[in-house]
Amino acid sequence: MSPSKKKARGGIDLGGTKIQTVVVDRDNEVLGEARTQTPREGGPPAIAEAMAGCLATAAEDAGYGRGELKGIGVGSPGEVDNGAGTVSSARNLSGWLGTYELAADLSERLGAPVSLGNDVQVATTAEFELGAGREFDTVLGVFWGTGVGGGIVLDGKDWLGRGAAGEIGHMVVKRGGRRCPCGNKGCMEAYAGRAAMEARARKLKKKGRKTKLFKLMKAKGKDRLTSSVWEKAHKHDDPVATELIDEAIVALGAGVASAVNLLDVECVILGGGLGVRFGERLGPRIEERMHKSLFTDEHPPAFEVAALGDLGGAIGAALLAR
Amino acid sequence: MSPSKKKARGGIDLGGTKIQTVVVDRDNEVLGEARTQTPREGGPPAIAEAMAGCLATAAEDAGYGRGELKGIGVGSPGEVDNGAGTVSSARNLSGWLGTYELAADLSERLGAPVSLGNDVQVATTAEFELGAGREFDTVLGVFWGTGVGGGIVLDGKDWLGRGAAGEIGHMVVKRGGRRCPCGNKGCMEAYAGRAAMEARARKLKKKGRKTKLFKLMKAKGKDRLTSSVWEKAHKHDDPVATELIDEAIVALGAGVASAVNLLDVECVILGGGLGVRFGERLGPRIEERMHKSLFTDEHPPAFEVAALGDLGGAIGAALLAR
Repeated sequence: MSPSKKKARGGIDLGGTKIQTVVVDRDNEVLGEARTQTPREGGPPAIAEAMAGCLATAAEDAGYGRGELKGIGVGSPGEVDNGAGTVSSARNLSGWLGTYELAADLSERLGAPVSLGNDVQVATTAEFELGAGREFDTVLGVFWGTGVGGGIVLDGKDWLGRGAAGEIGHMVVKRGGRRCPCGNKGCMEAYAGRAAMEARARKLKKKGRKTKLFKLMKAKGKDRLTSSVWEKAHKHDDPVATELIDEAIVALGAGVASAVNLLDVECVILGGGLGVRFGERLGPRIEERMHKSLFTDEHPPAFEVAALGDLGGAIGAALLAR
Repeated sequence: MSPSKKKARGGIDLGGTKIQTVVVDRDNEVLGEARTQTPREGGPPAIAEAMAGCLATAAEDAGYGRGELKGIGVGSPGEVDNGAGTVSSARNLSGWLGTYELAADLSERLGAPVSLGNDVQVATTAEFELGAGREFDTVLGVFWGTGVGGGIVLDGKDWLGRGAAGEIGHMVVKRGGRRCPCGNKGCMEAYAGRAAMEARARKLKKKGRKTKLFKLMKAKGKDRLTSSVWEKAHKHDDPVATELIDEAIVALGAGVASAVNLLDVECVILGGGLGVRFGERLGPRIEERMHKSLFTDEHPPAFEVAALGDLGGAIGAALLAR
C-alpha cells in the first residue's frame, strides 16, 4: 500500500432503520459506499457486526482492505462519549439502552482507529463544510426522518450544549397538543416525525379513514411506512398521507421559525430521509410556513435542502477521522 | 478629582415604560441610582434628554459631576449598532422607528464616552457575570415584562446571531393560537407578555368578566396594568388575573423548555418586571411546566430568579463601559 493510500477514511452513519457507510479520500470525495439494514435483534454486538461488514463492503468497493484506512468515524444516535468510546441509551436501536464500547469493538473488527460523534451533528457538519452550508458561518440543520433532529453550527463551531443540544424535534409547537413518541405533548416531532406520522396514520385507518398507505407499504415489501411509501402515497393524492404531510409541514415551519427567532442563524438546511426526498417539492412550503412565524422578516435565513443527500451522515462521520 | 474616582461608570437601562440608571465602581458595586418615566412624546431627542437627566441624578447621588465618569453604557431595545452609535426601529419607544445617533447625543450631554448594547443581552450578561448565573458557563436569560425577551450566553460569550437573536418571546408555543402584538400567532409573548395580557384582560372585561384589575390600576394612578397591579390582583385571587397569569406560566414553561431542548443550557435565569416581582412565588411553577416539556429530564438546567433584580439591566449596561 502506498503512503497516499492510507489517507482514505471511512464513515458510518448508524440509523434506526439502516446503516450507510462511505470511504472518502483526502478531499472527501466518495470512493466507495454501501448500505444495509440495521439489525433489529441481537443488540449492540449484532449492530456493530453489521456496521463493520457494511464499512468493509464500502472499503472493498473503493479498493481498500482491512487495516488500510487512516481512520473511521461513526455518527450514532443516543448518548455518544467519544472520549470513552461508548454509545449509551440509543432508544431507537434494538437492545441498546445500556452503554456499549462501540469504538473498541469496531476498531478491532476493522483494524483502524474509530471516532464517535452524534449522528445529526456530523451530518450538519458535513453540510456546513462540504454541502449546502458552505457559504455560511452559522447554520441550523433540520433532519426530518423517523424523528426530527437538529444540528447547530455557530460561528463555525458545533454547538452541543452539555451533549444534549439540538433536540429541535422536541420544541413545543402546540402546547397541550398531540402526544409525541418521547412522551411529551405538542412537540414538533409529534406531527412531523415519520414514526409519529405512521402511528397517526394507523389510528386514522382504524377509525375508518380510507388510505392507500398500507397497501403501498405491503406492495413494497415493507413493514413500516418508509419515506418512499409516503412519497408514493402523496403523489397519488392519498387523503391521509396528504393531511399528515400538511400537518408535518406546518409543525416544521413553526418549530424552525422558533429556532431561528432564538438563534438568528444565517442558514437552515433541511435533511433527513423525508427532508431529502421531499425537500425540492415541499421545502418551499416549509420555508413559507417558517416565514409566517419569524419575528422579523427583514433578514430571513437562507433555506436549503441538504446537498449531500442520503450520504451526508456518513460523509460527516468520515470527517471525524481526519 | 482623584484618578481612582475616574474608574466609576454609568449604566442606563432604557425601557418602554421607565429609564433606570446606576453609577458603579470598579467592582460593579452600585454607588448611586435613579429612575424616571420614559417620555411618551418628543421622540428620540426627548428620550435621550430624559436618559441623560436620569444618569446625572444617579451620578450626583454617587458624588460625581459631569465628565467625571470613565464611561457610560446603555442597554436599549430596537436594533443597536454600537459601531455606528445608533439605535433604530425601537418599536416600543415613542417616535423611534428611524435611526437615531444616541451615543453621540448622550456623550455630548454627559461628557463621557457612551457604548450601546441590546437591553436584554446586557441584563443577561450582568446576571451571568455578577448575578444568578455566576457559577455557569452557559445561560439563558428570560426577561418577562411588557414583552418576553431572551439573552443567550454560550461558553461565556454573548450569542447575538446576526444581531436579532434571543427573541424567545416569539417562539411558537401554540401553532395557530392567540395573536401576538408582533402580528404572528401563538407566540409565547401572546400569552405571557404584559402588553398582551393587558389587551386580553380588556377584552375579557368587555365580554362581561368580573375583574378588579382596572380598579386597582386607577387606584394606583396608572393608565396601564403594571407589574404591581398584576401582583395585587393576583394576591386578591382576581379570577381574570389568575387565569391570565396561569396562561402565562404555561406558555413560559413550554417556550423555555423548547429553548432548553435546542440549546441545552446549564442555567435559566428569570428576570424582567414580572419575572423579578413574581419570581419567588411563581418561578417554581414555571420551572415545573418547563420540566413537563423537556426532552430529557436527566440533567435539567438550574432555574434561577435574577439576582440583581430591577437594577440588572442598568448594571449590565455599565459593564459595556469597562
